[in-house]
Amino acid sequence: MKKKSFPLANVYGLLETGPVVLISTSHKGIPNIMTQSWHTMIEFEPPLVGCVISGNNHSFAALKATKECVINIPTVELAKQVVAAGNCSGRKVDKFARTGLTPVPASLVQAPLVAECYANLECRVVDTRLVNSCNFFILEVVRAWIDPAVKDPKTLHHRGKGKFMIAGETLKLPSRMK
Amino acid sequence: MKKKSFPLANVYGLLETGPVVLISTSHKGIPNIMTQSWHTMIEFEPPLVGCVISGNNHSFAALKATKECVINIPTVELAKQVVAAGNCSGRKVDKFARTGLTPVPASLVQAPLVAECYANLECRVVDTRLVNSCNFFILEVVRAWIDPAVKDPKTLHHRGKGKFMIAGETLKLPSRMK
Repeated sequence: MKKKSFPLANVYGLLETGPVVLISTSHKGIPNIMTQSWHTMIEFEPPLVGCVISGNNHSFAALKATKECVINIPTVELAKQVVAAGNCSGRKVDKFARTGLTPVPASLVQAPLVAECYANLECRVVDTRLVNSCNFFILEVVRAWIDPAVKDPKTLHHRGKGKFMIAGETLKLPSRMK
Repeated sequence: MKKKSFPLANVYGLLETGPVVLISTSHKGIPNIMTQSWHTMIEFEPPLVGCVISGNNHSFAALKATKECVINIPTVELAKQVVAAGNCSGRKVDKFARTGLTPVPASLVQAPLVAECYANLECRVVDTRLVNSCNFFILEVVRAWIDPAVKDPKTLHHRGKGKFMIAGETLKLPSRMK
């Protein structure tokens, strides 16, 4: 794999733009992926990410049981696979086989990295206080990987019902914001 | 104002792309705004939004005391004002005066709408369980407004340190996803 380790302190910059992500889990030896857009940074370092995974999703039980997952960030070349993974359930389908995406072993968690995604964040669940009421998990990113060749990733941003905004040009303004 | 009421059931499509927002509050008669990117949808309807507002921000005290705010969504024409609002504190500065943005009365909350933003979401705080540990508020959107002339909003998406991705083109794929 051509990916490199990515500093945990910089992870927020990958997620706070709001990209669609693929969350991978592994439960009883069976890997699965789901398409997800409802996430937010919660802390810079260690990077904490809040994310909603509905109880209807097969990944909910895997995450609850294993407390591990990987957040994989796809770019526009993977749009069809992103939609395909969002339109079937891991309860019935091997989503890696269905989408043709490639699971690769992670370093610190059992859940696999999705090889085709330009960034992969290995996560552990650290807070479940809002899981019962809101399906809201807080994850700590424990290891991050990036394809260093991707500078301005053409991430996907869901407007609802299969309509995606593709990341456009970048604007740099003088700022003291982190 | 040329804005129209926007169905609450469609609010998720405005926020799940991850735009930078301006959160406005009003505390003891003094309006304020802050620039914010750490938010996520939590529920479709009524629309619930989770958002992190650090205790360092002047808006934190206003939100805690009044339990009301407005989430305003700017587009690229407002990039300078977005950065200006993120680089000073309402503790020291009248941010509406500093940025030239226009406060307009909301319908259901005391916090003002920011007139120049293409969408405005009037919110009430409905859950504070993670405020002490994570600065994480859950807001219910109680009224939404939109400029119907804006079809594919050129929203801003923060990559960190004043680097913004501007919303690019839209891709529509057949999908059963909401």
